[in-house]
Amino acid sequence: MLSNNPHINHPHLGEQYALLTDLYELTMAASYLEEEMHEEATFSLFIRKYPPDRGYFVAAGLEEALNYLATLRFGEDDLAYLDSTRLFKIAFLDYLKTVRFTGEVWALPEGSIFFKDEPILEVTGPIIEAQLVESFLINAINLQTMIATKAARSTVAAGGRRLVDFSLRRTQGTDAGLKVARASYLGGFVGTSNVLAGKLYGLPIFGTMAHSYVTSFKSEIESFRAFARAFPHNTVLLIDTYDTIAGAKKAIQVGLEMAARGERLRGVRLDSGDMAALSIEVRRLLNEAGLDYVTIFASGGFDEFKITRTLEAGGVIDAYGVGTKMGVAADAPYFDIAYKLVKYGDKPVMKLSTGKVTYVDKKQLFRFYEHQGQMAEDVIGLREESFSQAKPLLQPVMTQGRPLAPLPPLSASRELFLREFEQLPTQYKILQDPPNYPVRISAGLQHLQERVEDNIRRQELGVRE
Amino acid sequence: MLSNNPHINHPHLGEQYALLTDLYELTMAASYLEEEMHEEATFSLFIRKYPPDRGYFVAAGLEEALNYLATLRFGEDDLAYLDSTRLFKIAFLDYLKTVRFTGEVWALPEGSIFFKDEPILEVTGPIIEAQLVESFLINAINLQTMIATKAARSTVAAGGRRLVDFSLRRTQGTDAGLKVARASYLGGFVGTSNVLAGKLYGLPIFGTMAHSYVTSFKSEIESFRAFARAFPHNTVLLIDTYDTIAGAKKAIQVGLEMAARGERLRGVRLDSGDMAALSIEVRRLLNEAGLDYVTIFASGGFDEFKITRTLEAGGVIDAYGVGTKMGVAADAPYFDIAYKLVKYGDKPVMKLSTGKVTYVDKKQLFRFYEHQGQMAEDVIGLREESFSQAKPLLQPVMTQGRPLAPLPPLSASRELFLREFEQLPTQYKILQDPPNYPVRISAGLQHLQERVEDNIRRQELGVRE
Repeated sequence: MLSNNPHINHPHLGEQYALLTDLYELTMAASYLEEEMHEEATFSLFIRKYPPDRGYFVAAGLEEALNYLATLRFGEDDLAYLDSTRLFKIAFLDYLKTVRFTGEVWALPEGSIFFKDEPILEVTGPIIEAQLVESFLINAINLQTMIATKAARSTVAAGGRRLVDFSLRRTQGTDAGLKVARASYLGGFVGTSNVLAGKLYGLPIFGTMAHSYVTSFKSEIESFRAFARAFPHNTVLLIDTYDTIAGAKKAIQVGLEMAARGERLRGVRLDSGDMAALSIEVRRLLNEAGLDYVTIFASGGFDEFKITRTLEAGGVIDAYGVGTKMGVAADAPYFDIAYKLVKYGDKPVMKLSTGKVTYVDKKQLFRFYEHQGQMAEDVIGLREESFSQAKPLLQPVMTQGRPLAPLPPLSASRELFLREFEQLPTQYKILQDPPNYPVRISAGLQHLQERVEDNIRRQELGVRE
Repeated sequence: MLSNNPHINHPHLGEQYALLTDLYELTMAASYLEEEMHEEATFSLFIRKYPPDRGYFVAAGLEEALNYLATLRFGEDDLAYLDSTRLFKIAFLDYLKTVRFTGEVWALPEGSIFFKDEPILEVTGPIIEAQLVESFLINAINLQTMIATKAARSTVAAGGRRLVDFSLRRTQGTDAGLKVARASYLGGFVGTSNVLAGKLYGLPIFGTMAHSYVTSFKSEIESFRAFARAFPHNTVLLIDTYDTIAGAKKAIQVGLEMAARGERLRGVRLDSGDMAALSIEVRRLLNEAGLDYVTIFASGGFDEFKITRTLEAGGVIDAYGVGTKMGVAADAPYFDIAYKLVKYGDKPVMKLSTGKVTYVDKKQLFRFYEHQGQMAEDVIGLREESFSQAKPLLQPVMTQGRPLAPLPPLSASRELFLREFEQLPTQYKILQDPPNYPVRISAGLQHLQERVEDNIRRQELGVRE
């Protein structure tokens, strides 16, 4: 996802990734062109189902989606490649030469809390343009929304303790490594071990030493001393290489040596074993030695469930490195997310495939609140509807292919998330089997929905009223 | 992962991604430099455990790993960023300016079958260089190995039927979208829907139409006719938009219209419902209409388990689009994969952390075969050992930071996989709870392992013999 000089806004995203699409987007586009179908189409992006134990989602990935749309173009070598497949006529390849995304986008701001079936994003534009971008948009929104949601769950479990993204080595690829760092920060983490993500997104970065560091020295304590020499103000000692309690005692010795020099050991890190029991014992040893200011950091298989278990067992851990299971959303590694045509020209449309509902037409999402500001209910309605008591959540963010305004900085999106998350009643935040937040559809949408479905049944399935 | 002109060998991978590392790799490096620790280190990359239902792995990702190593360098803006963190001294940043990977790599060729605890790759070089590359190497090998392994399982389940990667929209990011297409091809798939992967890796690409295409037309049959007009030689009709059987009847009508023009409808695609029952009925309808040459393609939630269930239920599907569940390895979305220091200078090293074994020193992997060429047993030994009956599997692939020879083309790696997979006895390929293939360690490695562990226990834990 990077140009040679990577920076946050990826100005060439759409150029680099015009071909990062499913072949059918191009074959459909070729047919639309031949059929002279250039009317405006609206596609809606939404999540059909809650994965296990999920009862809300945290919107993320919009910045990447808009950067892609704003810069989409096919290069010479892209067209040469398409030509080489012998699938396409010259007229279509000529068309692709100049195609740009010229449509409009309504979306939930990054950091928003939302629920299943609710539109995250709606794209309106000439059907070829709005169709071509399907694969990329789903990919971008799916990953970051999935991770921000998983991170929010860890944030709930940790109850104010600090969480750091440690997942880079096991994320599914390099792009995920970066996006997970970004999305977990959005979902309440304080930073990441990923240096490039720190640079690209302005995130705080964390990290000190690995087991290999300890084992490369003649002895464990010599490795601790060497690290303290190099980083007198930023030393967190990994103490489980050989035995956590033996390691803690050596860390205390080095901590006292540092104190004698007027320095402060910052922390120790646990990375294996019974985290609750070990943290209690290590805390006791540190305090007895007068090192009560030394924090205990823990890593190794943490996610919202292990954090909860560790706290329930009395663990006294100040901060967690949360890695693999958050970084791949291990218990729910994909969403049932879709980008569906809901209107073509004047005609609201849907598919009827077994067990799947798509709400037709351009929509708006309305949120009702309790008097105390807590979220009460959402209504999915038609774009032109309004409800005096509700806040409309989808905002126009792009028109004629250009962003309407600069997007907020990531820190502001993180604040938005934290604020909205406060408004979500606690009962919906429980980590296992949460209840469903109430979402209904407006009478106007319900009426249109039924009319469109009846028409399709009559026309396509020969069903009489 | 792409420069502005992406192509297969990513010549700037290491430049773009020097900072795609965990911060601790850099803090450790800074300390190694201060301590003047420049001796040669060997790190071993291996998988500690089988995820559920796995009994073998398919090696993949080496090309990306070597491209990264060969081009690793820190740019001016990388160093400026590191300087801005105020963590590092000027001497270290000066050192990073000129650092390159100058070491050697031994590895399993891509497509190799291997097992838990076996080294996939061993890196030897000055400790700073070999340490810095940890995060990227794990990331690269983990993703592609995980996907190639998942794809191989689908290949087993499909029993010769054709499989196409359909996962782009739900892979975890854009890099994964590309790598999944590559690794699934390596693991026996015939191609992908991902156009950029087709271009970058020379993969066959597949795809025709989505539900949005069908719903954008006045009627389903008009959409079928329009597609056949645009692609008279490559039309696969998606028939489940409104009702699969009603859709099949319209596809037959269009198939007969095509036949009357001397064209051939290539296929129909099922995407929802009871795939076995629907495929049987659709096959019957097609055959009755004289369209026995029209293939049935199916997509929608397929993985090795659903393919097996569909075949067991009598499904008559000629080819499968395999998407999300393969593309994120949904039932096992990460491996317990590690990159551990096994030797520093002359000293073989290990960590002792609870429940985890690391085999020390530079190693070789030896494979013994039955008389019929079937795999019999593997032995993990020391690099300098040899066994007259066994084939040594780790090959030198890089020396002094340069590849020893051009890597084989992907098609050759795929052939290697298919050949080796033939040699793996069937009992290890079963999809649920396979037995463990026999892997033991050589007497020489066992002896050294015990000696190193005894030394550590004596020195670090005060244990007396």
